[in-house]
Amino acid sequence: MSISSFLPPVRTLMGPGPSDVHPRILEALSRPTIGHLDPRFVEMMEELKSMLQYAFQTTNELTIAVSAPGSAGMETCFVNLLEAGDTAIVCQNGVFGGRMKENVERLGATAVMVEDEWGKTIDLNKVESALKAHPEAKVLAFVHAETSTGASSDARALCKLARKYDCLSIVDAVTSLGGTELRVDDWGIDAIYSGTQKCLSCTPGISPVSMNDKAVAAIKARKTPVQSWFLDLNLVMGYWGKNAKRAYHHTAPVNAMYSLHEALVMLQDEGLENSWQRHKANHLALRAGLEAMGLEFVVAEDHRLPQLNSVTIPDGVDDAEVRSRLLNEFNLEIGAGLGTLAGKVWRIGLMGHSSRAENVILCLAALEAVLGDKVNTGVALAAAQKQLSVER
Amino acid sequence: MSISSFLPPVRTLMGPGPSDVHPRILEALSRPTIGHLDPRFVEMMEELKSMLQYAFQTTNELTIAVSAPGSAGMETCFVNLLEAGDTAIVCQNGVFGGRMKENVERLGATAVMVEDEWGKTIDLNKVESALKAHPEAKVLAFVHAETSTGASSDARALCKLARKYDCLSIVDAVTSLGGTELRVDDWGIDAIYSGTQKCLSCTPGISPVSMNDKAVAAIKARKTPVQSWFLDLNLVMGYWGKNAKRAYHHTAPVNAMYSLHEALVMLQDEGLENSWQRHKANHLALRAGLEAMGLEFVVAEDHRLPQLNSVTIPDGVDDAEVRSRLLNEFNLEIGAGLGTLAGKVWRIGLMGHSSRAENVILCLAALEAVLGDKVNTGVALAAAQKQLSVER
Repeated sequence: MSISSFLPPVRTLMGPGPSDVHPRILEALSRPTIGHLDPRFVEMMEELKSMLQYAFQTTNELTIAVSAPGSAGMETCFVNLLEAGDTAIVCQNGVFGGRMKENVERLGATAVMVEDEWGKTIDLNKVESALKAHPEAKVLAFVHAETSTGASSDARALCKLARKYDCLSIVDAVTSLGGTELRVDDWGIDAIYSGTQKCLSCTPGISPVSMNDKAVAAIKARKTPVQSWFLDLNLVMGYWGKNAKRAYHHTAPVNAMYSLHEALVMLQDEGLENSWQRHKANHLALRAGLEAMGLEFVVAEDHRLPQLNSVTIPDGVDDAEVRSRLLNEFNLEIGAGLGTLAGKVWRIGLMGHSSRAENVILCLAALEAVLGDKVNTGVALAAAQKQLSVER
Repeated sequence: MSISSFLPPVRTLMGPGPSDVHPRILEALSRPTIGHLDPRFVEMMEELKSMLQYAFQTTNELTIAVSAPGSAGMETCFVNLLEAGDTAIVCQNGVFGGRMKENVERLGATAVMVEDEWGKTIDLNKVESALKAHPEAKVLAFVHAETSTGASSDARALCKLARKYDCLSIVDAVTSLGGTELRVDDWGIDAIYSGTQKCLSCTPGISPVSMNDKAVAAIKARKTPVQSWFLDLNLVMGYWGKNAKRAYHHTAPVNAMYSLHEALVMLQDEGLENSWQRHKANHLALRAGLEAMGLEFVVAEDHRLPQLNSVTIPDGVDDAEVRSRLLNEFNLEIGAGLGTLAGKVWRIGLMGHSSRAENVILCLAALEAVLGDKVNTGVALAAAQKQLSVER
């Protein structure tokens, strides 16, 4: 055995995440490691927390970065807010609502499912019916931006319903944070989790989580211990909390935190609303090009996420071959369909640093080169350029 | 609010981890991010797996890197191998045996504790008595190298006892992997977890885990689902397993995996036994210096970990002030005591890239400068140098 250093190819990442990571963020990752209890590291964490509060638009004291990927952020919310025997209403309109169900059931609680077709937004009427029918429900959980389909749901209205029926809301914002409007305090979101590798354009591995006082009170009122030691927020708060003694809980992923800090400095410098606007503008340009080619969006216009563009694969086109050629000939990654949409759609991400005019143009040109006469040729780039110039 | 990039100080890390990270590993972290399902990433994972097998000295097919810190590796072993109602015998001779107890109890199993004094090795007779008294026990769990005290235990003998009484062994090798002799297959270890930030000298955040066929069979024979979706090895194996379809489970921390790969390439190039020998040699030099100063080791010689040197703080010395001066004046981090040893001991790490002659010398010189006439002066460096020259 003699294995050499791994030198990755340079890709353009336009799948469902990870997105392109800005060189500044990669450089931040490689800064010298210091101890997780070093006073300078603790200062950095304080800054990181305040920038996460900005990104989430919240003043929640419990705003932290969980030391593991988004799936662990999801699990953090469920295992802390629910106990065995509780009921949660879970909306499912894609893969991630299904993962929420797994989380609820594995902790011994009951998941009442409210299902919508994949690619559709969550139906508020169905949710209200479920809330009425299940007054025992403690939690309403839903995905704000379904990464598996590209559909957004009305988080503000859903949280209002949760409050009306005295439920805590748990919101999956893995793909929305930093990319589309999200206002934790204004919308009355009780608990929310996200990931770093989507619209924050950071490397994958960390999960921002925020909870308001109502959620914290629910954790403190638990009758049983949180089933996960690693994700128990009572313990994690001893490290992250205000005036906390920085009690040792686990060793934080120091360098990953540097990179999230840098990603959040970049978001702060751009301005959150400017970032939302940029995601929108590049989406419109990509959309103009894709539609000119004759490709169709999976999601209706009103609920389309600008950062994740799902399009139907044209008849007679080999899904895997196209993605493989894009990767091999152009170093361009786009996403495959997941679950019931596998083989039927592509998911084209314009997230964070990937959301740039040059990526829009590259993606359209590469798709046209690979798809050939399966689509309208010679029109996509002009359509996208026209849209981009409107925006400038 | 306007926060700037975080530029960490350059420290020498001689605490209980993270240890100094070699520049090659930091550079690997900053290589371009690619997708977690990219064929090149999958190849890299295969290499990573085979190098982890080498580090663990195992042919276990289930040898993976869990996408979260060592505490999550611990939780992975417990939640997969135990179910509610099961019994585990847990040895405790420091902080981490206590964390194992938490893991056992939070999943609804019973922990039968076998306690030894902190700083002592685990008493095999007590363990055998517990195994005899609890024929219902399914697991024997213990810490190979107690990071909180610097004591090693006889993993080979403990695993032999586990087999004799038909228990699965769960071994915490967070601080031993790469630093002291550890042979998973020869010693008959059924399940083992470690961390990246100790003797592998990688950044913190990932947890190597390995299980043999007996442990995998136990997971497959479970009557109930694993309580954690994120840590369910049935699902994780779909991504890591041989001939697996690389089913999407969660987004791997891509860049962190690059750095672990690089750390393992360095271990491979040095040779595992050479690494063990280096840790031993630098420990002996540090020990010679510390003893010349009049400092006393907490752990008896036979059970002393070379990579973690716990010494008693001399009377009349202010623990926090000394550590603070070492940090502020020399950028040198050493570790405080944990739990019952807080305020009573220092923990001086010589782990991975931190285990170098220059660190031994720096640490002794800095301690002498800060401790002044509280210790014997002017003799430590010569004693260490003499030991180093014996070894050369």
